[in-house]
Amino acid sequence: MRDKTDKIGIFDSGVGGLSVLKQFIKYLPFENYIYLGDTARVPYGNKSAETIKKYAEECTEFLISKKVKLIVVACHTVSSVAIDVVESISDVPVVGMINPAIKSALWTTRNKKIGIIGTRATITSMAYQNALRRESKNGDYEVSAKSCPLFVPLVEEGFINHPATKLIANEYLAEFSSSGIDTLILGCTHYPLLSKVISEILPDVELIDSGEQAAIFSLRLLAEKNLLLDDNGFSSVRPNVEFYLTDLTINFPEIVNIFLGFKVENVQVVKLT
Amino acid sequence: MRDKTDKIGIFDSGVGGLSVLKQFIKYLPFENYIYLGDTARVPYGNKSAETIKKYAEECTEFLISKKVKLIVVACHTVSSVAIDVVESISDVPVVGMINPAIKSALWTTRNKKIGIIGTRATITSMAYQNALRRESKNGDYEVSAKSCPLFVPLVEEGFINHPATKLIANEYLAEFSSSGIDTLILGCTHYPLLSKVISEILPDVELIDSGEQAAIFSLRLLAEKNLLLDDNGFSSVRPNVEFYLTDLTINFPEIVNIFLGFKVENVQVVKLT
Repeated sequence: MRDKTDKIGIFDSGVGGLSVLKQFIKYLPFENYIYLGDTARVPYGNKSAETIKKYAEECTEFLISKKVKLIVVACHTVSSVAIDVVESISDVPVVGMINPAIKSALWTTRNKKIGIIGTRATITSMAYQNALRRESKNGDYEVSAKSCPLFVPLVEEGFINHPATKLIANEYLAEFSSSGIDTLILGCTHYPLLSKVISEILPDVELIDSGEQAAIFSLRLLAEKNLLLDDNGFSSVRPNVEFYLTDLTINFPEIVNIFLGFKVENVQVVKLT
Repeated sequence: MRDKTDKIGIFDSGVGGLSVLKQFIKYLPFENYIYLGDTARVPYGNKSAETIKKYAEECTEFLISKKVKLIVVACHTVSSVAIDVVESISDVPVVGMINPAIKSALWTTRNKKIGIIGTRATITSMAYQNALRRESKNGDYEVSAKSCPLFVPLVEEGFINHPATKLIANEYLAEFSSSGIDTLILGCTHYPLLSKVISEILPDVELIDSGEQAAIFSLRLLAEKNLLLDDNGFSSVRPNVEFYLTDLTINFPEIVNIFLGFKVENVQVVKLT
């Protein structure tokens, strides 16, 4: 059993999960966090399910060893293909990226046409599509999904408003214009950073930020389990995050700034294998 | 001691090294090859030197266990930051990507202005720049280097002739137009696939394909050591390559086709850790 003073553990294949952490800090600013990024093996998005499951298991075991009270799987690829692995070895609640986003999309859509974008592994896994079918109780929703593999490297290169990004986004998103969706799930940690470009191409489409929905979902979950930290537990250091990476990559400082908007110090490098 | 019937071992962080293998098959078609791609941890290009050295060591040990007669480090990032690690544990000759390309660039340039493009790790390591200074005996060569991190994902997405690729290449290569180089080293396995786009932007610049130069260099090296396979050793299966990957990635078949132009069967998945 955990108690409310324990931390929230968030893991990701790399630094993209910082966009999820940012949403958690926004909705649960009083909590203490552990962030684990598997930067030595990033990205997961183009790798096989078997390998992703192995990596997810190692990340989960690390967070469990830190006695977190909640495990947030910030990586959409892991949420899509290995959430069962994480749940099977975790003794605390697990929040993935998919279900909160799906629920939000179902509440949001008016015309019952929902789009999903993500990495190749996420889209190929059909995890979002299947969850949508399940949650909607096979309601007559039209779902279209598209993998956008270049969005991650474009964001990491800082090409957020670059003409090339717009050109590529135009091509990736063209099918959503013709299918007439009114709601689009951003199924990858990096995609919220491209919200402006995506909205220019699909101006009438509501974008669902999975990280934001996961934070709201976690707020409710922890409250119901009486595990939210109260005022007395507040640390004077805000935001209070311990950072662990499996590799201290060259461009980490720039990347952190792109995702979090503040500087990170005292990053610890850990080995998972 | 090895003999001429032993295979040539080539390793890379992933599948990019297939462009190097293709050059070896072109110049040494009669040889037998082992190709190892560390697809479970690809890419290396944005990772730290320490992590790259560890991965390079594991790849080298695998090839040594296969009793190869030559180790070709097809990965430019490893060639830049960890070639000493490979050489220190290998009992057979090691050919990296840098020295053959540098020698070729020095022979090629007329105006003594040489450009280098590569991944962030390759360019930051200064390996090409330092080797050029060393090989030219501090001759008065002007060297300019630029990292082009988006070229790899663009090639892997098959955006070889895409307008977005031209836009990004224009931006990356602009400084070479102004610096007036006449020779450009393609310091990454993926870049030869963008030769056409690069030549459109820099029409008067000679492009050096490091993989091609490494193949020519190896031909000479093996001949001098009397380790080239002769007619009697010819296998009836051409090209004769054993493929090992650390992860069977989803898009492997397409990617292989982009790089090699022929289908690959019987890929074996191996664990390096």
